[in-house]
Amino acid sequence: MLDGIEGPQDLKRLSERELGELVEELRSEIIRVTAQTGGHLASSLGAVELIVALHRVFDSPRDKILFDVGHQAYAHKLLTGRRDRFHTLRQEGGISGFTKVSESPHDAITVGHASTSLANALGMALARDVKGEDYKIVAVIGDGALTGGMALAALNKIGELGKDILIILNDNEMSISPNVGALNRYFRSLQVQRWVQGAEATGKKVLERISPKLYGLADRAKEAAKLLVHQENPFYAWRLRYVGPVDGHDLRGLIYLLEHLKALEGPTILHIVTKKGYGYKVAEEDPVKWHGVGPFDPKAPQGSKKKGYSWSLAFGDALVELAQTDERIYAITPAMREGSGLTEFAERFPERYVDVGIAEDVAVTTGAGLALSGMRPVVAIYSTFLQRAVDQVIHDVAIENLNVIFAIDRAGLVGADGPTHHGVFDISILRAIPNLKILAPKDAAELRAMLKAAFEVGGPVAIRYPRGQTDPVQPGLWPEIEWGRWEIVKEGDEVAILAFGKTLGYALEAAGDDPRVAVVNARFIKPLDEAMLRALVARGMRILTVEDHQLCGGFGSAVLEALEAMGRSVPVRRLGLPDRFTGQGKIERLHQKAGIDAAGIRRALAEMGVKPVLAFGE
Amino acid sequence: MLDGIEGPQDLKRLSERELGELVEELRSEIIRVTAQTGGHLASSLGAVELIVALHRVFDSPRDKILFDVGHQAYAHKLLTGRRDRFHTLRQEGGISGFTKVSESPHDAITVGHASTSLANALGMALARDVKGEDYKIVAVIGDGALTGGMALAALNKIGELGKDILIILNDNEMSISPNVGALNRYFRSLQVQRWVQGAEATGKKVLERISPKLYGLADRAKEAAKLLVHQENPFYAWRLRYVGPVDGHDLRGLIYLLEHLKALEGPTILHIVTKKGYGYKVAEEDPVKWHGVGPFDPKAPQGSKKKGYSWSLAFGDALVELAQTDERIYAITPAMREGSGLTEFAERFPERYVDVGIAEDVAVTTGAGLALSGMRPVVAIYSTFLQRAVDQVIHDVAIENLNVIFAIDRAGLVGADGPTHHGVFDISILRAIPNLKILAPKDAAELRAMLKAAFEVGGPVAIRYPRGQTDPVQPGLWPEIEWGRWEIVKEGDEVAILAFGKTLGYALEAAGDDPRVAVVNARFIKPLDEAMLRALVARGMRILTVEDHQLCGGFGSAVLEALEAMGRSVPVRRLGLPDRFTGQGKIERLHQKAGIDAAGIRRALAEMGVKPVLAFGE
Repeated sequence: MLDGIEGPQDLKRLSERELGELVEELRSEIIRVTAQTGGHLASSLGAVELIVALHRVFDSPRDKILFDVGHQAYAHKLLTGRRDRFHTLRQEGGISGFTKVSESPHDAITVGHASTSLANALGMALARDVKGEDYKIVAVIGDGALTGGMALAALNKIGELGKDILIILNDNEMSISPNVGALNRYFRSLQVQRWVQGAEATGKKVLERISPKLYGLADRAKEAAKLLVHQENPFYAWRLRYVGPVDGHDLRGLIYLLEHLKALEGPTILHIVTKKGYGYKVAEEDPVKWHGVGPFDPKAPQGSKKKGYSWSLAFGDALVELAQTDERIYAITPAMREGSGLTEFAERFPERYVDVGIAEDVAVTTGAGLALSGMRPVVAIYSTFLQRAVDQVIHDVAIENLNVIFAIDRAGLVGADGPTHHGVFDISILRAIPNLKILAPKDAAELRAMLKAAFEVGGPVAIRYPRGQTDPVQPGLWPEIEWGRWEIVKEGDEVAILAFGKTLGYALEAAGDDPRVAVVNARFIKPLDEAMLRALVARGMRILTVEDHQLCGGFGSAVLEALEAMGRSVPVRRLGLPDRFTGQGKIERLHQKAGIDAAGIRRALAEMGVKPVLAFGE
Repeated sequence: MLDGIEGPQDLKRLSERELGELVEELRSEIIRVTAQTGGHLASSLGAVELIVALHRVFDSPRDKILFDVGHQAYAHKLLTGRRDRFHTLRQEGGISGFTKVSESPHDAITVGHASTSLANALGMALARDVKGEDYKIVAVIGDGALTGGMALAALNKIGELGKDILIILNDNEMSISPNVGALNRYFRSLQVQRWVQGAEATGKKVLERISPKLYGLADRAKEAAKLLVHQENPFYAWRLRYVGPVDGHDLRGLIYLLEHLKALEGPTILHIVTKKGYGYKVAEEDPVKWHGVGPFDPKAPQGSKKKGYSWSLAFGDALVELAQTDERIYAITPAMREGSGLTEFAERFPERYVDVGIAEDVAVTTGAGLALSGMRPVVAIYSTFLQRAVDQVIHDVAIENLNVIFAIDRAGLVGADGPTHHGVFDISILRAIPNLKILAPKDAAELRAMLKAAFEVGGPVAIRYPRGQTDPVQPGLWPEIEWGRWEIVKEGDEVAILAFGKTLGYALEAAGDDPRVAVVNARFIKPLDEAMLRALVARGMRILTVEDHQLCGGFGSAVLEALEAMGRSVPVRRLGLPDRFTGQGKIERLHQKAGIDAAGIRRALAEMGVKPVLAFGE
C-alpha cells in the first residue's frame, strides 16, 4: 500500500480495507526504521489511525495540520512524500524527528517543545481570516501539552475570537511521564463517566443533536454550536464546542467524525483516546521506556539499553543521598522525572517531590515559593526547556537571591533531537542575571561536590551538565571543591586552554603532553576564577577558551569581559558553536564540525603558534 | 484611625464603624501620596476593602497573603508598618511600588510581573505541608493575571493536589487595557447570570448549603467541598471550590465570608467584583488612564499629563503609516495596547490587530503563525516582558528565520517601577539567538527608518527603544538607513565612543568638541558594523562602549567578541550596568549612579588618558 502513496491525495482513492492495510504497513515501517535510528516510537505508533484519517479527510498542505511537539508525526512523514528518506530519520543531514517547516510544505510548524501549536494555529487563523482565505486549521495536541500554560492561554483567545480551528486532544494519559494536573484528572473522569465508544457511534450521536436541516450549512453553524456547547463539559468556559471522548484507534469512526466536523465552523475540541505504542506490544506495556528509544532489535525488543551511567542519574543519586540528611531538600520537575534522573528520589521522598507538568515557568516559581518558606528546592530542568522560564529565574528567584538550585541537564549539543533541543543558550542567558552562580562539572564526582557546595553557599546556583554518560561514583563519597576556584588539570607555559564539562576531555586530548599547553578546568563560569585568570596572564600565557555552547555571549565572552575589566589586552581565542542553529546528528560528530573537539583545538593551537611537536617516528 | 495602626493586629480591635472609617482614610492617603509620587492608583483604590478585610481576618505574616503583580497593595503597605515611609513610594531608596520580600515580612512575594502568585502559593503550600505547619495561604489575583498561562498551569496543579490555598479572584474587568479572552467573558457572564450580591448574602447562601453540623469541622471539609463544587462553575474541571461572584466593596460582607472560608480547607476560589479607582471619581471613570499615573493635582485631577512625544507613540505612529500601504502588517500586544502606543493602530486596523492578553509567549508564537501564513507581524512588547517569551523567540521564530519584528519598548532602566521592570537583559538574551538582528535607534526618525528597513530585510528583527520621550517626527518622512552600518556622529582621533539609543546623547555631551573623541551611533547591535569597527581600530583608536543595559553579555561584550574574532588586541573599556539588580529611582539619576551618563563617560575617558581640556576661563 505504502509504495503507492506519494502524497496525501493518494489516500483519497483507497478503500476502507486498503486504509486498514495502510495503517498496518505504517506501523511496521515506523518500527522497522526506529529500530535502526531510534526515535519517538510510542507516540508515533499511537497516532497512526489519527494521521491516516486526517490526511484522508483534510487537504494538506492547503489545510494546515499542526502537530504539537511534532514527535508523533512519523506516519505523517511517511504519507507526505518522505518515505524514501525516512530511513535518515534523526541522522545527520536526514529528516527531523519532529515536523519542520523547511523540510516539507506538509509540516505546518517547526517544533520540538510542547504547547506551541495553539498559538501558532491562532496566528494562522488570524492570517487566513484577514486575507479572506478558506482552509481548515487542525491542531493535534496531547493531554500533557494542552495543560501547558501557553496552550491554555492560547485556547482562551481562540475561544474568545471564535476562530475556526479544530483542536484534536490526543489523550493518551501521558506526555513522557504519566500526566499530572487537575485537568488531566478531569479528562480521565470524562472517560469514566461516558465510556469511550467508537468514534462513529459518538459522531452519530453528536450529529443527531444537530438538526439535519442545519447540518452542512455553514452559516447556521453557530446554531449547531449552541446545541453542542453546554456547561457540563470542561471547555464551556472557553466557548469551545466539545466532542468526545472517542476511540482514537477506530479509523473508520475517526474518518466519519472528521468529515462531519470539517463542515462545521468555529473552535472545536475533538477528544480522542489513544494508547501510546499501540500495535506494538512491548511499547504498549511500557510506554515510558518506549517514549524515546535508541536503536533496538525488533525481533527481541528490550528497548534500547542505556549503557553505563548517565549524568542525569549521577545528579539524581547525589540528590537522594543529600536529601537523606537534609530534610529541606525538595525536587521539582516539569514532567521529566525519568529524563532528569529523579525516579528514585520520587520513590524515596514522595513528600518532597513534585512534578508540575509541562510548565517550566511554574516549576521555577514553585521553587521560589518553597525557598521563601525555608526549603531548599532543586529545579531539575533541561537546558533547552529552561528557555521557557527565563523571567521566572530573574523575577521570582534572582531578585531576592533565593536558595533555588537549577540542575540543568542536556546542556550543550544533544544529538539527534536537533536544533529545537540543543542546550546551547543557557550560559548567555543566565550569565547576565545578577546573584546567579553558574557551574559546570567535569565528571560525576565533581557534580556531587558542586551540588553539595551549592546547598552550602546558598542563593541561586545553576549547575549545567551534558546529555550522555559519565563515570559512576562511589555512593557516600563527597569530594570537596574550593568554591570559585578553577583547577589546573595539566601544566604548561605558553597557552592555557580554559575548558569545562565535556570540552575539558577534548582539551586534554589536544594538549597531550605538550609542555607548552596548560589545561584548566574552568568549572566556575560565573563568577569566573579571576585570580587564576590573572595569574595565567601574569605568566604571559595566551588564552584559548573552548565551550559546548554558542560563542555569542558564552563563557569565552565572559573571559574577554574579565580581561577587559582587569585592563589587560591579552591574545585570546575562543572556540564554541558558531552563530547559527546546529542541526541534528551524533554529538561527537557535531562537536567535530564545530571545531570544538580535540582536532579543532589542535588546529586553534597551531594557529596560535603552538604547532604540534612531531613525536618520534612520525 | 490610620494613626493607631502599627500592624495588622491593630485591625482586630476596631469596630465595624471604625473599619469603615479606616477604609476612607486609606483611600485619602493613597490619593494624597500618589498625587506626589505617581503610582498604580486605580488598582490600589479598588482593593482597599479587600485588603482591610484580609488583615482583619487573617494573621499576617504568619498567614501568607500574596498579591499578584503587587501594585494593588498600597493599602497593605499602609497597614503593615510602612505608613511613615509611604511618602517615599517609588522614589530612590524608598519603598517599592510592588510588594517586596526584602521590604517587609508582610510582603510574601517580590513581584511586579503578572500571574506568578499561584505558583509561589503552590510552593509555599508544599513547604507548609511537608513541614507539618499550619497557616493559611491567600493569593489575590486579578482576572487578567489569572488567565495568564502560568497562573492557569499552576491552578491545574493546585487543584490536583487539593492544596489548602484561598485564591481571591479580584475581577475588575481589566488588567491595564480591558481584559480579553474567553475566560474573562465567562467571568462577565457569571456576573450577568447571577447578579452580584452583597458578600454576606452570598456567604450565607453558601453556608446554607453546608450542613451546620459539618460546618467548621475541618475533617469534614471535603464533604462541604463536594456540596459546593458542581459542574456549573468554570473551576469544576480544576477541582476548585468556587464561591461568588460577590461585591468586593462590601467590607462587612467580605469579612463575614473570609471568616467562614478561613475555616474551610482545600483550594477555593472566591470571586469578588471590584471597580478600579473605586472611591475616586475621575479614576473610576477612566481606569486605563489612571492605571499608572505620574504626579497629579488631587484638587484638579486631570491625571498626569504625558508631556511631549513618547517613544511608544513614535513606534505606533510609524506602524500606522506603514500599515496603510502594506496590508500584510499585523500588530500583536500582550495586554499593553496603550503602553505600546498601539491605540491608534487598533482603531484604524482592528482586523490586523490582536491583544492576546497577559501571555507574552502566546504573543510571540501567534506572530510565528502569522508569519508562516505570509503576514508581517510586529510583536510590541516591553523588554522586561520579553523575558517571558525567550523560548518562543528561539524555538518558534528564529529557527525558521521567520519574518517577525519585535518592537521592544521600555529597554534600559525604566525608573520608578524598579528592578522587576528594568529592561536590561534583552541584549544578552537576544544576542545569542542566531538569525535575529538587534537594532537601537537614537531618535524617532531613526526608529522609523529601522522599522521600514526591518520589513524590507526580513527575518526576525528586534528594535529596542527606551521608556520616555523623544522628538516628534513629521508624518510621511521616512529617512533611509544603510542596513548594518553605524554612523559617525562626531569625528575624533584617539578614542571612539560606541553608544546607541539613550547613551548616544550622553556620549555627545561628554565628548563636547574634544577633537580626540569620536562618537559613533552603534545602532546595529547585531550584527555589528565590523567594517567600521575594523576601520576605527586600524586608525589606532581606543574603544569605549556605553550601554543602558547589563554589562554582562551586552553590547560591549559583542564588541570584545568582534575584536577577538578579528584577532585584534585593542584597549577597550565598557560602561554599562554593573552585575547587580538596579533599584528604583529617576532614570537620569540611575544612569548617573551607574556611571553611564555624560559625567561617567568623562571619567572613563580621563582614565583612558583623554583628560578634559580646560576651556578658556575655567
